[in-house]
Amino acid sequence: MIYLDNAATSFPKPEKVYEEIARCMREYCANPGRSGHAMSIEAGRAVMQARDTISSLFNISNPLQLVFTKNATEALNIAIKGGLKPGDHAITTGMEHNSVIRPLKTLERDFGVELSIVRGNDFGEIQPEDIGRCIRPNTKLIAATLSSNVNGIILPVKEIGAIARDKGITFLVDGSQGAGSVTIDVEDMNIDMLAFPGHKGLLGPQGTGGLYVREGVHINCLMQGGTGSSSESVLQPEFMPDYMESGTLNTPGIVGLGFGASFIKSFGIENIKHYKSELIKRLHEGIVDIKEAKLYSKSDINKNSGIVALCFKNMDSNEISSLLDRKYHIATRAGLHCAPLAHKSLGTLKCGLVRLSVGCFNTVEEIDFTISALNEISREVQKN
Amino acid sequence: MIYLDNAATSFPKPEKVYEEIARCMREYCANPGRSGHAMSIEAGRAVMQARDTISSLFNISNPLQLVFTKNATEALNIAIKGGLKPGDHAITTGMEHNSVIRPLKTLERDFGVELSIVRGNDFGEIQPEDIGRCIRPNTKLIAATLSSNVNGIILPVKEIGAIARDKGITFLVDGSQGAGSVTIDVEDMNIDMLAFPGHKGLLGPQGTGGLYVREGVHINCLMQGGTGSSSESVLQPEFMPDYMESGTLNTPGIVGLGFGASFIKSFGIENIKHYKSELIKRLHEGIVDIKEAKLYSKSDINKNSGIVALCFKNMDSNEISSLLDRKYHIATRAGLHCAPLAHKSLGTLKCGLVRLSVGCFNTVEEIDFTISALNEISREVQKN
Repeated sequence: MIYLDNAATSFPKPEKVYEEIARCMREYCANPGRSGHAMSIEAGRAVMQARDTISSLFNISNPLQLVFTKNATEALNIAIKGGLKPGDHAITTGMEHNSVIRPLKTLERDFGVELSIVRGNDFGEIQPEDIGRCIRPNTKLIAATLSSNVNGIILPVKEIGAIARDKGITFLVDGSQGAGSVTIDVEDMNIDMLAFPGHKGLLGPQGTGGLYVREGVHINCLMQGGTGSSSESVLQPEFMPDYMESGTLNTPGIVGLGFGASFIKSFGIENIKHYKSELIKRLHEGIVDIKEAKLYSKSDINKNSGIVALCFKNMDSNEISSLLDRKYHIATRAGLHCAPLAHKSLGTLKCGLVRLSVGCFNTVEEIDFTISALNEISREVQKN
Repeated sequence: MIYLDNAATSFPKPEKVYEEIARCMREYCANPGRSGHAMSIEAGRAVMQARDTISSLFNISNPLQLVFTKNATEALNIAIKGGLKPGDHAITTGMEHNSVIRPLKTLERDFGVELSIVRGNDFGEIQPEDIGRCIRPNTKLIAATLSSNVNGIILPVKEIGAIARDKGITFLVDGSQGAGSVTIDVEDMNIDMLAFPGHKGLLGPQGTGGLYVREGVHINCLMQGGTGSSSESVLQPEFMPDYMESGTLNTPGIVGLGFGASFIKSFGIENIKHYKSELIKRLHEGIVDIKEAKLYSKSDINKNSGIVALCFKNMDSNEISSLLDRKYHIATRAGLHCAPLAHKSLGTLKCGLVRLSVGCFNTVEEIDFTISALNEISREVQKN
């Protein structure tokens, strides 16, 4: 099987991730930060180590400002709902995933929050000045994805961050696509809040994610509960990370995520980016010659986090994806990818797109086989 | 090491749980319910199988009404916040964990929800009629724990459920302590919403939990995001379980939880209950003879989900727990256990309690060694 669905979840993980999750579960998986016994302390230490590793990957100076969540969606919901009041205005882009759009649209519908959505061009490229033009006196949040989950287009996050900083507006980045292969520096990019999944480019397991909140940015927590701290109080403690980490953490998952991040650090983000871009370039070059195919992604290394998006004339994207799966054992994702506005920007809302998303464990041979498969499908289509 | 901290998280897990989590991660861990390829379908099928197994454990007739969460705390926050409006009244008990109390207290402080808390007797026992007496015309929610996480006392959930049903009030049960060794039947007990963790008595991994919501009980979801369904819509789909399951699920965790629940089903809840009660009885009988010790739990099989709670005269609970850990390698939890109101009921808010919580993998030999250790500590205390 050739796995080209890394934008949904990365597969496989580094061997060490599997091993350390298993070791944690079998050897020391007590409740971290709760009881004071040796095993609980070891679990707590392992969680702290993962917090440190991930913080250093994103240039987060205080790891206690990084909270673990179950996925990026939880992190985005905390970030979006924690700071907006009725009458506030938020700006986002037309390239967002539903994990950003649906919470914002819900606040707009039910809570009196105003919303502006900045559209991109035919490739989903966003101009920072278009975001600047939407700013109103009551603008409290700018939310932008690092990279589109539909066609991989990388947004000018640093430039948007500068505008937000200049105007004193909180800037939230959805790092779901790109974290792990695109450099994220919360200082350099003026990021106030960074949401990320653990199970995609960071090579950790499903059930993990996180949210960084800059010191001084106050947002309400979405959930309250046991934190193992201030146990005498019937109200949530207000210090981080406890404020936003209620209930038992996913210790083995977080341990796995930490080792995923370690793998990335030792391999080097730039090297991963370069390797993935070689695969993406090769795919583009192979597909551009296929008469029936139309590409909706860019092959430029600085504009694509690792996705090739295409469709065939007169053929539903689901049909192509299904053929790739059944006949060639190539795993891809077709349809709308939980991002209707992005497909609206690209003009593909009706047909959807076939998404081939590469990971750092894909090989050149797999890419070449995929190009051959797409060529074969194209020839079949032309025959019929 | 002797692990007597199963009320915090169970350890170890059945061998099959470890194996199937590893197999899922290494063999088929794509994104369930997202892409249409073979691996994604296999992941989706595994999640559905776990949903079915857990549903059958709790007599839930429609497994689609069961949603997976990251822990019980998330499930409780959804259940508590999803249905209460300003001006509504909620009733809970003085034996709740902070995962119930903190969300309710936050709603009381910030959102205009009224709250009544029914106190128990010296052992934390609650009289259903005391709850009945608190009902007001605007009472919309009764929330009660199945069993206390401090001393294991089992609450009369079925009787409280009958009162709630009679008055048309939504009844939420926190199954955090007891699920897996105390029979939970959502029909027989009139439970409208059941929150549970996966990593305690159900023998699954951390990072898992769930919420059952009876058909016809409408509550708002706490988070919105990608669901892999209704992708063309910028608003959350309103059907279950998608309505409450946003973002990528913890597939390997849920698979592990499913196999934990399978283990319980094949072993038999009644057998687990009986086995644990034998250990609890033995611990009580051993400790009752220790002059310095005072017990705050009951040995009666029908009144205790698996916890022995004690303190020593003139000795801080943390000191005893620390000695048990360092000198005897016995893992317990001391202090307030994130349940200040329960300790207030028991009169142990100042000193805290040592909690010995047994699991189905503890042995009689471990119990006897623990009794000896407590005897030794007692003799040391008397000498000083």
